[in-house]
Amino acid sequence: MLSKSKIKLIRSLEHKKFRNETGLFLAEGDKLVRDILPYFQCRLLAATTDWLASAGQLPDCETVEISADEMHSASLMRTPQHVLALFEQPQYDFMLETLDGKLVLALDGIQDPGNMGTIMRIADWFGIDTLLCSSTCADIYNPKTVQATMGALARVKVHYVDLVSVLNACKGKMPIYGTFLDGEDMYATPLSASGIIVMGSEGRGISREVEKCVTHKLFIPNYPAGAVTSESLNVSAATAIMCAEFRRRLR
Amino acid sequence: MLSKSKIKLIRSLEHKKFRNETGLFLAEGDKLVRDILPYFQCRLLAATTDWLASAGQLPDCETVEISADEMHSASLMRTPQHVLALFEQPQYDFMLETLDGKLVLALDGIQDPGNMGTIMRIADWFGIDTLLCSSTCADIYNPKTVQATMGALARVKVHYVDLVSVLNACKGKMPIYGTFLDGEDMYATPLSASGIIVMGSEGRGISREVEKCVTHKLFIPNYPAGAVTSESLNVSAATAIMCAEFRRRLR
Repeated sequence: MLSKSKIKLIRSLEHKKFRNETGLFLAEGDKLVRDILPYFQCRLLAATTDWLASAGQLPDCETVEISADEMHSASLMRTPQHVLALFEQPQYDFMLETLDGKLVLALDGIQDPGNMGTIMRIADWFGIDTLLCSSTCADIYNPKTVQATMGALARVKVHYVDLVSVLNACKGKMPIYGTFLDGEDMYATPLSASGIIVMGSEGRGISREVEKCVTHKLFIPNYPAGAVTSESLNVSAATAIMCAEFRRRLR
Repeated sequence: MLSKSKIKLIRSLEHKKFRNETGLFLAEGDKLVRDILPYFQCRLLAATTDWLASAGQLPDCETVEISADEMHSASLMRTPQHVLALFEQPQYDFMLETLDGKLVLALDGIQDPGNMGTIMRIADWFGIDTLLCSSTCADIYNPKTVQATMGALARVKVHYVDLVSVLNACKGKMPIYGTFLDGEDMYATPLSASGIIVMGSEGRGISREVEKCVTHKLFIPNYPAGAVTSESLNVSAATAIMCAEFRRRLR
């Protein structure tokens, strides 16, 4: 049985304030919880009798058997699942040297939790294990983002950094790419195997300060060239195309 | 001033039942309303004094000047804008011949209104002017979808069809592509300038019935090949990569 204070704790993790205070995040659903259980320190696992019976070996953490009604009270999802878990937010040290020789994504002010999660899945798919996020990005431990990552959270390390400082420190050592409507046709531009790809925010694109750090301005060509189309692609869609193209060039 | 019944009508368009009954859809915000105003029959335009003063020539439709408070009552957005408008849902005739020689997207059971909107923007960016949607797809006139299209709605025609029947009728006349985890590496496969690209639902991918219609199974390679990554890309991300690659081949 889940105490009222536990239910309150779980539901409080919808808010960044409480995620910061507790250092915890919430994950819900069989697939997600199973996927990330080996990678993060679990502090509480609440599941139905059936789930626990079929779960096999579980890590050493507080485990509570709960009813469907209790799950309904604790869950932040419209359709509660059979299991939810609280995990400790990992603390990754960030050192500039870890970027050497890697292809890395840098996010400048991405606001939408769903976009953050989708971008993390894209990074994971394309073997990009480091995400640099400006402090203006949405919190990766927002429950909506955690759900949208579909487990990629376990493989991609996220660092919230002063993006301008980090990019300035990298300038000259590695190429820094960004997408701009007045950039160069990406298909007509040599792309490096390593470096940083900066993606800008949904509404305003890459900020002026970050733009100054970009060494290669790229454009994802629309079709046919010069046609009247949408003014831009959604940031997740643009990230997907960029990452796919960088990886295709390595073939 | 906006009557109570008008406010009720506007807010009712959140629900598909009322969109179907009235044949209307709602669009909010300066940019979106301006973008689509020339393309759809406007039935009601409600805007603040300032917006109307700066709007210039408006089409011949019922126009109501409203206060910020009234906008707040009528709007479905968290942060109401200065204008909203009701438009008639266009009725497009669908004929198989309109697909000839075109690259077309077919959506099989896309559930998320945001994904529907993002995919429409991708289609627009890549000059794909026809979207075939199975009847199991989310409604394109859902206000969330309309907002996510960012005006692409004006250029991309959407047809809700019996997808299996349409694809069967097309089979043999044009290639029908679909993405599958066991498909052929898309970069190692010739891609046609025209044909149909089928994208499957978020949870279950392409349905079995639709799979039988697919003539070319493709796979978007992850990196490095064979690495343990997310099990799939988000459907919008996959659609973006597919459309970009089909268009890149034409260069």
